[in-house]
Amino acid sequence: MSGAAQLAQSLVAGDRRALSKAITLVESSLEADRQTARELLSHLTEPKATFRIGVTGVPGAGKSTLIDGLGLAAVAAGKRVAVLAVDPSSRQSGGSVLGDKTRMTQLSSVPSAFVRPSPTRGVLGGTAARTREVILLCEAAGYDVIFVETVGVGQSEERVASMVDCVLLVLLAGAGDELSSMKRGVLEAADLIAFNKADAGPAQAVQNEAASLRASLSISRPGDMPPVLAASALEGAGVGELWAALLQQHAEAEQHGALARRRLAQRRSWFESALEEALLAAFANSPDLALAKAAAEYAVDAGIVSPVEAAQRLADQAIPGQRS
Amino acid sequence: MSGAAQLAQSLVAGDRRALSKAITLVESSLEADRQTARELLSHLTEPKATFRIGVTGVPGAGKSTLIDGLGLAAVAAGKRVAVLAVDPSSRQSGGSVLGDKTRMTQLSSVPSAFVRPSPTRGVLGGTAARTREVILLCEAAGYDVIFVETVGVGQSEERVASMVDCVLLVLLAGAGDELSSMKRGVLEAADLIAFNKADAGPAQAVQNEAASLRASLSISRPGDMPPVLAASALEGAGVGELWAALLQQHAEAEQHGALARRRLAQRRSWFESALEEALLAAFANSPDLALAKAAAEYAVDAGIVSPVEAAQRLADQAIPGQRS
Repeated sequence: MSGAAQLAQSLVAGDRRALSKAITLVESSLEADRQTARELLSHLTEPKATFRIGVTGVPGAGKSTLIDGLGLAAVAAGKRVAVLAVDPSSRQSGGSVLGDKTRMTQLSSVPSAFVRPSPTRGVLGGTAARTREVILLCEAAGYDVIFVETVGVGQSEERVASMVDCVLLVLLAGAGDELSSMKRGVLEAADLIAFNKADAGPAQAVQNEAASLRASLSISRPGDMPPVLAASALEGAGVGELWAALLQQHAEAEQHGALARRRLAQRRSWFESALEEALLAAFANSPDLALAKAAAEYAVDAGIVSPVEAAQRLADQAIPGQRS
Repeated sequence: MSGAAQLAQSLVAGDRRALSKAITLVESSLEADRQTARELLSHLTEPKATFRIGVTGVPGAGKSTLIDGLGLAAVAAGKRVAVLAVDPSSRQSGGSVLGDKTRMTQLSSVPSAFVRPSPTRGVLGGTAARTREVILLCEAAGYDVIFVETVGVGQSEERVASMVDCVLLVLLAGAGDELSSMKRGVLEAADLIAFNKADAGPAQAVQNEAASLRASLSISRPGDMPPVLAASALEGAGVGELWAALLQQHAEAEQHGALARRRLAQRRSWFESALEEALLAAFANSPDLALAKAAAEYAVDAGIVSPVEAAQRLADQAIPGQRS
């Protein structure tokens, strides 16, 4: 049995170390590792009865605390929960999100939950394809609820939406002008919106904000209005209701075939990003093209040719327009 | 004379409509337009004595108002100013940044300034390569100060840094916790930091915040500490000083050769993104590969092959590992 097949076996059997090892492997950009990763993935089947939840919102909105609470609710219902932090637009791995703050303190100590452990290496960089591969690894390892927490705001929503069954947008109650300065796409990508109360302020104010957003959404998204809920992740209020709303939406999507359609789109989108990545890797691994590229770089640096013209010539050499 | 050569001539002569037309052409993803765009770009030379300034910061920090003020200061000094809004991580064009708010009201009315006019189509989506092409178009059209305003936060900083001579990070004074929840990369990418005061609060508080950030940066970036200034874009206070600081930094970078190195890196980085884009386009334009891809999609949808495996096979077919 090959190493990849063995790793797949341990992972499916629920070995946490095998899962961590597989994630590291999938995240590696070394060509040898990519090859093993592909073999590993070909041994795994995509389970159907899982729930992929994307969580977006500005830094400081309380995404992590809310995921901590939602994850515990899922665990209490007998689910196994995995949490991934992703930055879908960054190609660099790593990078600290929340400095050295401890994230998801409660969920981290639950045996049936898997939280990417180190905060400084807790962000999945890499391409969108990698994120999808890691989601699949977690699912194959038996985790049935996957939280995908995004970093940054205004850019990652659309990409994350193409990886998950449901996008939960977390808004900080009392932030006021925040909404007006948000890109429209952020609100449009949300399947569910939660106002999170950071401090012990009056609960009525949060309810008022939620009501005002509902009124605005009834105009901008008539017929497709996402539920707007209020929660206080710190005090635990409203978290159970939020989890119930997520489950209800998931069940409805399953019944009406919307989930199946969305999963198919996720798979297509994974294929597209994997193809982009594989093409660039194939180019980089061809000795002839590497040589041609070095020559082109020299001409570009010297100002002999424009970068865009040099790029086009190289691309034509790599993939000729007409093939026999 | 070809259409592209004529357009280049009008653009260099300072025809604003030619510039707008050229930007639209460069942003188009139609293959025929790409070809014309490449020809257009090959007719233009990259002027050296320009100043490319990236402006980053959370939504609502007052980036646009500050650019408005800085742009006027540049115009007063006899410069011609162009302002571009970019979302370097989005592949989709368009998208409203600030709803229907009017942006840069003062600068927009100055004849020697060029602000991408329509707010709803004011964001350059597309790849990083496109943004670089548009910067070059503006420079060839005679604009010598180019502001590149980013949208979103936490993801675009590194990419924008690879396109400009200087990154100005705008922080909203009084936002307090904002800094602690920011990704480290945001602070690390900044060449200059401005605390912007949104309201008419006490000026002393802003000075205190600036001092506290300076103290923190002296530890995290010793020997490479960016200047931290306070400004009130709305009241116009400190904007002149900020412009002077930007100019001084630019002059120093020019003297020490840092600017030349950074420009070379920008050109390299442009070439890299143009190459990625051209490769993907060459793949999409090959009839054989399009056919193979359709077959692969079918197999992926049906669950016969994993997306990552199918992608690899297609890439191998497009760019065989060993060439004769």
